[in-house]
Amino acid sequence: MAKVTYDKEITALLVIDPYNDFIAEGGKLWDRVKGVAEANECVPHMVQVLHAARQAELRVFYALHHRYRPGDYETWKYIAPVQKAAWLHKSFEYGTWGGEIRREFEPQPGDIVAQEHWCSSGFANTDLDLQLKKHGIHKLIVIGLIAHTCVEATVRYAAELGYEVTLVKDATADYSDEEMHAALDVNLPNYASAILITNEVVALLSALSP
Amino acid sequence: MAKVTYDKEITALLVIDPYNDFIAEGGKLWDRVKGVAEANECVPHMVQVLHAARQAELRVFYALHHRYRPGDYETWKYIAPVQKAAWLHKSFEYGTWGGEIRREFEPQPGDIVAQEHWCSSGFANTDLDLQLKKHGIHKLIVIGLIAHTCVEATVRYAAELGYEVTLVKDATADYSDEEMHAALDVNLPNYASAILITNEVVALLSALSP
Amino acid sequence: MAKVTYDKEITALLVIDPYNDFIAEGGKLWDRVKGVAEANECVPHMVQVLHAARQAELRVFYALHHRYRPGDYETWKYIAPVQKAAWLHKSFEYGTWGGEIRREFEPQPGDIVAQEHWCSSGFANTDLDLQLKKHGIHKLIVIGLIAHTCVEATVRYAAELGYEVTLVKDATADYSDEEMHAALDVNLPNYASAILITNEVVALLSALSP
Amino acid sequence: MAKVTYDKEITALLVIDPYNDFIAEGGKLWDRVKGVAEANECVPHMVQVLHAARQAELRVFYALHHRYRPGDYETWKYIAPVQKAAWLHKSFEYGTWGGEIRREFEPQPGDIVAQEHWCSSGFANTDLDLQLKKHGIHKLIVIGLIAHTCVEATVRYAAELGYEVTLVKDATADYSDEEMHAALDVNLPNYASAILITNEVVALLSALSP
Repeated sequence: MAKVTYDKEITALLVIDPYNDFIAEGGKLWDRVKGVAEANECVPHMVQVLHAARQAELRVFYALHHRYRPGDYETWKYIAPVQKAAWLHKSFEYGTWGGEIRREFEPQPGDIVAQEHWCSSGFANTDLDLQLKKHGIHKLIVIGLIAHTCVEATVRYAAELGYEVTLVKDATADYSDEEMHAALDVNLPNYASAILITNEVVALLSALSP
Repeated sequence: MAKVTYDKEITALLVIDPYNDFIAEGGKLWDRVKGVAEANECVPHMVQVLHAARQAELRVFYALHHRYRPGDYETWKYIAPVQKAAWLHKSFEYGTWGGEIRREFEPQPGDIVAQEHWCSSGFANTDLDLQLKKHGIHKLIVIGLIAHTCVEATVRYAAELGYEVTLVKDATADYSDEEMHAALDVNLPNYASAILITNEVVALLSALSP
Repeated sequence: MAKVTYDKEITALLVIDPYNDFIAEGGKLWDRVKGVAEANECVPHMVQVLHAARQAELRVFYALHHRYRPGDYETWKYIAPVQKAAWLHKSFEYGTWGGEIRREFEPQPGDIVAQEHWCSSGFANTDLDLQLKKHGIHKLIVIGLIAHTCVEATVRYAAELGYEVTLVKDATADYSDEEMHAALDVNLPNYASAILITNEVVALLSALSP
Repeated sequence: MAKVTYDKEITALLVIDPYNDFIAEGGKLWDRVKGVAEANECVPHMVQVLHAARQAELRVFYALHHRYRPGDYETWKYIAPVQKAAWLHKSFEYGTWGGEIRREFEPQPGDIVAQEHWCSSGFANTDLDLQLKKHGIHKLIVIGLIAHTCVEATVRYAAELGYEVTLVKDATADYSDEEMHAALDVNLPNYASAILITNEVVALLSALSP
């Protein structure tokens, strides 16, 4: 894998779906995620990368899944399985604790929260690509959930749209090792220019700090 | 999996990358593909689905990877690994036999060949979505190569953009069983509304025939 | 101009920016709009078309401009003049009456409100195209404001993306007759398949009513 | 209008539709264009800007309208008036002299020719946005034809997608003064950050030359 470098003018951190439903005790999907997430210390690593990015004064962007609201899907003629599941489970229900961002990842002033997306990619049908361009960003460091759905979809779209991506592999998680493996080892090496661990990314970001 | 039905007014066949380089003896990538492709009879199945679609008078669309031309990548500041590989291998080189469509899949009058794409999704940065809309299409039956790169990327994008997808799982192939498994069993069940075998799709299409 | 017909399964009404700031007495931009808007009875015509569409059971979609929030633009490196103006004037300020939809146009259950857009086109960087596809829509009847900015931008994008558009020319308005003329008479005849008056559209919609 | 500056790393020239059909004696549309084009010396100005851009080592991009080919439109269910006109007139017919680029504007090695577009915007359903990102471009200097259709559409899209645009107003032309006025004086001041004459742009570019 090519040695990766960051220039803070064109690099941003992208945080994907840090909802309580995914990564907080009591969240609707936490029981399915926690096996993988605790094994690789996903949440503490996400916090470490976020702090290192803020320390280095990288701009922080959020790509968030649509929060369920009544009436979202009833009138659709065409629907993908992942959307049926979101409908059935009322994932990230708007107005509930599960649909809030876990406390440590609350957006701060100056962060950019893109519009919520309807399927898995943070880019599809949202203003994420626009906001990245408005801030002059060409390189993304990606953390968050779920590895083989929203993370993989967002990294694939990022590559399709011309961004250079670093994925932090111990700052993501999945429902099973098999799904994690499909995303991190089989598919994403084609689209992410670097797949690093938290310590490596934190070291690279520290070198940028003012 | 929900029972799938097709209405010929809104359904099309989408053929992905039937290049000689992928699926013809002597093609640059055939040696890497043929293990999986011969085991599941990928090419004969692709031909069967194509004929059944033509018989049923479904519109046929082609999503094709960019054919390598000198000067394509030299000036890019940002490049994904899958694009570096295409550059290195000169995949589907323009003007060569490898960059031609395998004879059985030659587009016919009335077929729609979308603009070539630069990464893996047939939708990204092309006119495929436009052409589908211009023809009133909402449902896609997908065949072709490679399962975990262009096929998966195109199916994911199709779902993100609102299409309902059927993937024909023995009319696609990959470099290895593991990659095939990641695409067909791990990831695509989230995005494709149906994942069927050729016989099932041919039966459904036969029921539509005039 | 070709005779236009509507099939209710594939036709929708698209209402653009019916904010108090534009079309209500006391709105920030009403003083600039009211000359043209009162002369052509824009608001009563918009109401008539909306009612006729609901009567005919057409799906109603809303394309809304971004509501100003503090911090929106301060960090952008690149900004268009129309965005600078929105920043300066705090147009459609979030949480204020001016940023609310005029009472007669309040979205009803079953209506689809697309994500807010950042420039002029209701399609750019939003989920409008997705929502139209999810509902099987191919034809749009367009009403709302401002003719030469958001309306023209949205109609142009609709045509680029494959939709067939009817514009209701006395259910839109502008800051001046010259700007109205540029949109309705010079530019949009290239992109809208029909440019009709309210009475014509209401008659066509009445013919569809159950 | 804000004072504009260019940094050659992020600025490119975008040349729109310099086809013989538009701007060469004998071209299908030249008779309709030449009144305005000769009055403002459009073609010599386009050449001047192109040379100044090459001298300053700006990257040059081309946005080209789809060249007519038989079978393009026959199967479309939905079509915009501007597309009907292109079909009727067989504009820029593929394989004919009218569909070739006027000699002075022939793309040179290192120039980027985006995929042909189907309506008016050089961005819609093409790889233009991708190619600009791959080259790190955020600012565009725009020349070419026709002011109120392809040029206006492309500048509007550029603004929607986050680019900062300079339009060179005596290096574009139109079928009539009224259409030229609608584009240059009424609409584009909202989307182009600067609307300059050739001499001004050439002076700014000269200051960048190596």
